[in-house]
Amino acid sequence: MTATSPTHAEDYHEGAIYDLGTHAVSAEEIVAFATRYDPQPYHLSHEAGAASFFGGLVASGFHTAAIWMGLYVRALLQGASVEGSPGLEGVRWLAPVRPGDVLVGRCEIGEIVANPLRKDIVTIKKKGSLVRAGETKPVTTLVLLSRFRRRDAVAG
Amino acid sequence: MTATSPTHAEDYHEGAIYDLGTHAVSAEEIVAFATRYDPQPYHLSHEAGAASFFGGLVASGFHTAAIWMGLYVRALLQGASVEGSPGLEGVRWLAPVRPGDVLVGRCEIGEIVANPLRKDIVTIKKKGSLVRAGETKPVTTLVLLSRFRRRDAVAG
Repeated sequence: MTATSPTHAEDYHEGAIYDLGTHAVSAEEIVAFATRYDPQPYHLSHEAGAASFFGGLVASGFHTAAIWMGLYVRALLQGASVEGSPGLEGVRWLAPVRPGDVLVGRCEIGEIVANPLRKDIVTIKKKGSLVRAGETKPVTTLVLLSRFRRRDAVAG
Repeated sequence: MTATSPTHAEDYHEGAIYDLGTHAVSAEEIVAFATRYDPQPYHLSHEAGAASFFGGLVASGFHTAAIWMGLYVRALLQGASVEGSPGLEGVRWLAPVRPGDVLVGRCEIGEIVANPLRKDIVTIKKKGSLVRAGETKPVTTLVLLSRFRRRDAVAG
């Protein structure tokens, strides 16, 4: 966390963009995730991947979404006043993620929505993306809803 | 896979409901997932969870979505003619998931959408949910889009 890291609702402004750093994807990590949470053949071995329409081992889409969350939490949520999340508005898997890919995470602040029942809480849409290093088109995008406390608010 | 497990697009019918079995959630699994993919304090230790508004250790929402996928793949995708997924239409985290929870997975078949460019492929919406054993209200719901091949189709 740097001195300028956002921690409370007031620190976020629609349209702001944050770089989240990078995550290098290994075959071992792809297989470890898939073994527990998405044991389809093309996520489990090079051989099965090569025999599939993907033409090789590819990461589970649930895995790529989780990779974005890991980058986001490490870059932006250290010391943050989060009060959980109601969910994701959507996730798009736009291109396969393969061993050796280095994914660059980004987060753009979307709509900021006041809560009529809890004046101390604001819901903020985070528009996330992962792009392969050196490329421009995302491999994964998602919209995460997050509840943040206001720094200056008293519950009521 | 039983003799009646669906494998191709023609096997799915809107409104059909499949039981996916159960997943028992442990503190170790919650912490292991969160350490890699969602290192927020209330996902990492009982102590930090107790000090948070959750009142205890809770699973990452990305983890509960992945748990559903694991149940779904093991119950319904063995030998299936899947050609990947364009994404999730949404994920809702409706209640915290805690160590010791036994989650029951369910999948309801939603809209079945033909693909005008690929007559051999159909996109099927899977409406997933996780409910604690013995309860009725889901803790997590999601809508997954999946592409299935038609058994009788030739590409074109």
